[in-house]
Amino acid sequence: VTLDLVLVGFGNVGRRFVRLLNEIAPRLAKEHALETRVVGIATRSRGCAHGADGLDGAALADRVEGGGRLGRRESTRAFLRAALRRNAAAARARRLVVVEVTTLDVERGQPAVDHVKMALAGRAHVVTANKGPAAFAYRALERTARRVDRRFLFESAVMDGVPVFNLARAALPGVTVDGFRGVVNSTTNYMLTAMESGDSFERALATMQERGIAEADPSLDIDGWDAAAKTAALANVLLGAALTPHTIEREGVSADAGAAVAAARAAGRKLKLVASAERAGASVRGRVRLVELPATDQLAGIDGPQNALILQTDLLGEISIVQRGSGLTATAYGLVADLVAIAREVSPTRATRPQPTRARRRRSPSPRGRRRS
Amino acid sequence: VTLDLVLVGFGNVGRRFVRLLNEIAPRLAKEHALETRVVGIATRSRGCAHGADGLDGAALADRVEGGGRLGRRESTRAFLRAALRRNAAAARARRLVVVEVTTLDVERGQPAVDHVKMALAGRAHVVTANKGPAAFAYRALERTARRVDRRFLFESAVMDGVPVFNLARAALPGVTVDGFRGVVNSTTNYMLTAMESGDSFERALATMQERGIAEADPSLDIDGWDAAAKTAALANVLLGAALTPHTIEREGVSADAGAAVAAARAAGRKLKLVASAERAGASVRGRVRLVELPATDQLAGIDGPQNALILQTDLLGEISIVQRGSGLTATAYGLVADLVAIAREVSPTRATRPQPTRARRRRSPSPRGRRRS
Repeated sequence: VTLDLVLVGFGNVGRRFVRLLNEIAPRLAKEHALETRVVGIATRSRGCAHGADGLDGAALADRVEGGGRLGRRESTRAFLRAALRRNAAAARARRLVVVEVTTLDVERGQPAVDHVKMALAGRAHVVTANKGPAAFAYRALERTARRVDRRFLFESAVMDGVPVFNLARAALPGVTVDGFRGVVNSTTNYMLTAMESGDSFERALATMQERGIAEADPSLDIDGWDAAAKTAALANVLLGAALTPHTIEREGVSADAGAAVAAARAAGRKLKLVASAERAGASVRGRVRLVELPATDQLAGIDGPQNALILQTDLLGEISIVQRGSGLTATAYGLVADLVAIAREVSPTRATRPQPTRARRRRSPSPRGRRRS
Repeated sequence: VTLDLVLVGFGNVGRRFVRLLNEIAPRLAKEHALETRVVGIATRSRGCAHGADGLDGAALADRVEGGGRLGRRESTRAFLRAALRRNAAAARARRLVVVEVTTLDVERGQPAVDHVKMALAGRAHVVTANKGPAAFAYRALERTARRVDRRFLFESAVMDGVPVFNLARAALPGVTVDGFRGVVNSTTNYMLTAMESGDSFERALATMQERGIAEADPSLDIDGWDAAAKTAALANVLLGAALTPHTIEREGVSADAGAAVAAARAAGRKLKLVASAERAGASVRGRVRLVELPATDQLAGIDGPQNALILQTDLLGEISIVQRGSGLTATAYGLVADLVAIAREVSPTRATRPQPTRARRRRSPSPRGRRRS
């Protein structure tokens, strides 16, 4: 199948994504019968491009990085409306995907939530690396996606492209997740590790900014908002909750943490910013807290750039997934994994397994009387 | 869809499996539109049962545990041949699954490999908790399965039902695995942890046998054969290798290990039985070795009943999956997860997502000219 892609946003993630698609095109074609082409790109300040016959995403990424422009300036809403209209035939054929890669707004998750709504209304699938839609509006967006028979996927929103959501969806059928604990924000985890080695809060933060890991305005990370958005998204999907980042009990890493880090270290323990959620009666309680962990706790060993998520399940006990290093390629890959999930559904037999012959199917008798074993 | 199940073997895993199916039948029906019924069971010494209208698996498990018999004694080959003949209609309809739960033979993987071949020849899918088929004959069996358009799945063979194979298959599309390292044998890991606390090899082994974790004949575990079979299965599937347990460089845990454990401990390090594989030119090298690990190595923290597998990947760097506790339910669950994977394929839309209307599909235009973005 060929998926047509409309990119809303063309920052670091969007540009790495179009280049990664080029790099791994041969294996996507061979292993998953998936081809892609970019039919629209919206940037925040460098204009927009439409191209029904396919745009050269990598060349346009070069152009933007060289200070150039893509085309006429449009609001992202106007761009998206036009792109959905221009590509309506692909949308009807279930081959149109809106790739939402704008940055997180932690007040309301906008305009990303609206982008997802518009895309689904236009019968496009949506994949996004933005935590906002799943953190603020998962239930409504998933309901809409099911109603219009399209997918709303966001593997990259937590732990880059490491399969957290796809793991739970595809590989844990029938398992109930009762709660989770994890270290999900790299900036604060890097900082806590540096502070353990004696760095001050200010020094640790400056180092993260120099390395390009923390943003120039790092408040989303150090105030715990990024972790809270991830916690809400995880709780909404894995525990069926209806949380938002604002209903997560939230703590961040501040200059005060230095003394707590030192005290933990003196006691042979580790201070970690732990994201967690658990069922509390009919509702779900989500938290982001600085917790002093014994050295034997699995999360105590998650240092620097590592992330980890421990799921409490009914049938498998505790299982955890650990990401040893993070980065732009891993984030961009999460979007690709979501595209493959869509391709499998649009063309399930080609993308997964050889198709059975028609003759064999036709001979199949109807299922016999049912009885559970 | 209703899957008809033929159990070859009815030991601890098989009996837990039929009971687990009963316990989670409501959620399998609701979430995955999957119903199951047992139409045949072969035991080693308690006879066999056939029942085209469905057997009461849990009642038969009770009977076996109470010292009773299922029916006439048949060889497993004769039983399987009869079961495939009796259930040929379900097999043609892709609804028949042979559940292979005999124990591992580390010499040749038999008779499990033959059971898988017979089942596929009879157009049944196969799910197995036995490491033998994937460790000795993965490539040939997978090729046969593809040719007859049936599935050969074995999630339980490594780390119980924790999704290792399904993770790589379903959730890491397009990712290349370059190698892995892991702790995959619980008995030896328990023993090494006990020896760290000062137990002798003999005492540690006796404790494992008392707790029912090690077999009466524990040589498969302590000689490293179980880990070697798992390493071969993992390498064959994840790295496209054609290894067997006999081509894995193998070491076990012997009485001599006591001194090495003590020396590692004195140096602040840990001795672990590490399974690994890596590409070496065009081939793959697999090893099971006692390795002294620095305390900061993730595998150093995998104590007692825990298992862990670290995958080296091209797009996501190192990712790992950790099982915090093992057990019969987790093993039985792996078989259920494989059944759901089969159900998704037999009836993809019902088992996964709402089906698009016929009208919408019919309106779809044919794909336009292809061009890679």
